[in-house]
Amino acid sequence: MAKTIVLGAGVMGSAFAQLLADSGNEVMLVGTHLDGDIIDRVRADGIHPKLNVKLPEKVQPFFNEELEDIMKAQAELIVLGVNSAGVDWAVERIGPNLNAPVPILMLTKGLNAQNMSFEILPKIVEKGLIRYNLKGLQIAAVGGPCIAGELAARRESSVVIAHPDAALLDWLLSRVAAPYYHARASTDLIGVEVCAALKNFYTLAVGYAAGQLEKIGKAANGALMHNLAAGLFTQALAEIYYFVNYLGGQTASVLGLAGAGDLYVTCQAGRNGRMGKLLGSGLLYREAKSRYMADDTVEGAELALVIGKILKQLIENGNIVRKAVPLAASIVEAVCDNQPLLIPWSRFYQQYTAS
Amino acid sequence: MAKTIVLGAGVMGSAFAQLLADSGNEVMLVGTHLDGDIIDRVRADGIHPKLNVKLPEKVQPFFNEELEDIMKAQAELIVLGVNSAGVDWAVERIGPNLNAPVPILMLTKGLNAQNMSFEILPKIVEKGLIRYNLKGLQIAAVGGPCIAGELAARRESSVVIAHPDAALLDWLLSRVAAPYYHARASTDLIGVEVCAALKNFYTLAVGYAAGQLEKIGKAANGALMHNLAAGLFTQALAEIYYFVNYLGGQTASVLGLAGAGDLYVTCQAGRNGRMGKLLGSGLLYREAKSRYMADDTVEGAELALVIGKILKQLIENGNIVRKAVPLAASIVEAVCDNQPLLIPWSRFYQQYTAS
Repeated sequence: MAKTIVLGAGVMGSAFAQLLADSGNEVMLVGTHLDGDIIDRVRADGIHPKLNVKLPEKVQPFFNEELEDIMKAQAELIVLGVNSAGVDWAVERIGPNLNAPVPILMLTKGLNAQNMSFEILPKIVEKGLIRYNLKGLQIAAVGGPCIAGELAARRESSVVIAHPDAALLDWLLSRVAAPYYHARASTDLIGVEVCAALKNFYTLAVGYAAGQLEKIGKAANGALMHNLAAGLFTQALAEIYYFVNYLGGQTASVLGLAGAGDLYVTCQAGRNGRMGKLLGSGLLYREAKSRYMADDTVEGAELALVIGKILKQLIENGNIVRKAVPLAASIVEAVCDNQPLLIPWSRFYQQYTAS
Repeated sequence: MAKTIVLGAGVMGSAFAQLLADSGNEVMLVGTHLDGDIIDRVRADGIHPKLNVKLPEKVQPFFNEELEDIMKAQAELIVLGVNSAGVDWAVERIGPNLNAPVPILMLTKGLNAQNMSFEILPKIVEKGLIRYNLKGLQIAAVGGPCIAGELAARRESSVVIAHPDAALLDWLLSRVAAPYYHARASTDLIGVEVCAALKNFYTLAVGYAAGQLEKIGKAANGALMHNLAAGLFTQALAEIYYFVNYLGGQTASVLGLAGAGDLYVTCQAGRNGRMGKLLGSGLLYREAKSRYMADDTVEGAELALVIGKILKQLIENGNIVRKAVPLAASIVEAVCDNQPLLIPWSRFYQQYTAS
C-alpha cells in the first residue's frame, strides 16, 4: 500500500482521503490548525462531522501538530486539501519537513494575483517550496465537477487530473482507481486550474438568476428564469474561455470536465450560487456576507477580492480586452466595491458571434 | 410595420409572434391543422391556452385554411414555428403560395438523416422549396437557450440567429429588437443547427441523473447526484462538439449560446429531461412514452428515431469515430432498440484528455 498524506481535513480533503483508501492507499489525514474538532471526532468514532460519513479505517486521522512526525515516514504522495487562503500556510508546514521530492496533488482551487499577472496555485506552491531548497517538485491538480459530499457518499464523480508529465499522470490515475471515481488525465495544468478557480467566481453571477426569481417571483403564466440563468452560464463560459487562452491554457479544458462540467455542477448547488442568489435578490455583497454567510468561505468572492484590483488594471491598460470580460467586471464591482450586481446584457456574447 | 407570417401556433411559434409584435412588426400567426383549438381561443379572448398569456393585438390569429389568402399580401418574413415532424408539411403549405423570395426564419429544431448523412432542417426546407421552383431563398435559424413560456412572459432570453449572410442577419436582428430579447448574429448556420437539435437528444441522458436519484434516493449524508449529472452534461457537450465538427460547424457555436447555453437550459426543465428521468429511473423507452408521455412530443427521442439507424451505420463503417460518441450510441440503443439506458463511463471523456 502506498503511503499518502492528505493535508487539510475539510470536506474535500477528507472525501478525497476516503477515495484514496478505497483505492488501496494507506492514508494519513492531517487536519490544519482549524480542523482540531474534526480530527477529535474522527478519532472518537470515525465520523467526519461535516461530511456526515464514517471514514474508512484505512484513513488515519492526525492533528496538525503531528505533521512533523508523520512526514518522517516517507510518503509517496502529498495531497493538499486546504482552502485557497491556506496555501501559504501549507507551504510553511510542508517545506521544512520534506526530505525528498514527493509528488504533490492539489485539491485547492484559486488564483493568485501579483505583479500585474495571475498565477495558478501549483505555481505558488512551487515557488514557496523553492524557498526551502526543494526544486523540481511535481505539483499536479484535480479539476472537474466533484461536490465533496457526493464523493464522500461514493456517488459517480468525474474529474480530470492535470500535470504536464504524462508518466506522473498515469501513476496518479493508478492511485485513485475506485469504481465510482472517473478520473482522466490532462496535460493542460494551466487550463484546468484557471477553469477550476473561475467557476466559483462566475457562479456568483449565474446565481443572480435564482435571486431575481426569488425577488420577482414566477410570471403569471408560471414561467421561471431558466433562460436568464442559461444566458449568464454561457457568458461565464465565454469569459472563462477568454481567461484560459489569455493565461496559456487550452480550449479543450474549457469544453471539458474542468470548464463546462465544473461550472455546471457549481451552478446547481453550493455556497457560491447561494451568494449569487443573495446578490441577485438585490443585497449588496457586504450585507449578504455579514448577514447570511458570515461563517462561510465563498471561494468565488474570495477570488474576486484577490484578483479584482489587478484585473481592473489589466483591463484599464488594455492587456485584457474589456469587451471580452464584461461579466467579470460586474462581479468585481459587486464584491470589491460593494456595488449592486448589474448584468450588462448589451456587452454579452461578443466573442462568439459574427457581428 | 413589417408584415411577418408565423406558421405554427404552438408555444414557440406563438411566443415568437408576441416578440415580433413587441418589436414593432405586424404579425399574422397561422395555426397548423393541429392548432385549430388554439386559434379559436386566441380569436375569442387573445389567450394562448398553452402559454397562458394574452397575446398582443398586433398578433393576428389565423386558421391553417386561411394561409393562402394571407400569403397574397406580401410578407417580408416568414417564420416557421412547426415542430420537427411538421417541416415537410410546412414546405407543402408554403411552396405553392410563395410568389417572391421572402426570407425564412426557422424556430424548428431537428436533423434529417438519409443517404448515409445528416442534414440540418434549413437544408431540408431549401430542397423542398426548390421543387416549387423557389431558388436562392435565404433560410436562417434561431438557436440558444429560450424556453417558450419564459419568452412569452417577456423574461430575459438570449439567442443566436444564424445564417451565412451578414446583411440578412443585421436585418433579422433589427426585426427582433424587444428589450428582453438578447439576440446575436452567427454565420455558423450548421453549427447552431446541429447544437440546437442535439441538445434535446443529449438531455435524455443528462436527465438520467434525476431518475437515478429518484430511484436510489439521497445518500445517508444527504448527498444528491449533481456530480453524475455534470459528468453526463460534459460528455454530451463533448459529443456535440464532435458532431458539429464532423458536419462542418464551428467550435465557437458549441461553446456559445446554441451549444453549452441551450444544453444548460434544456437540462433544467422540459420534456426531454423528463423522459431522461424516466429512463434513469429504470423504465424502458416504450413503456415510459406510452405510460407517462403518450401525448407529448419528446424532440430528443424523435431525433433518436430519425438518426439512429444511420448513426449506427456511420459508426459501423468508421465514418463516425466510435469512441467519440459512446453516449449517443447508448441513447440510440435506449430509444430505438428499447434497451435500458446504460452509461458507459469507461468510454467517456476520451477526446479532451491526454492519455
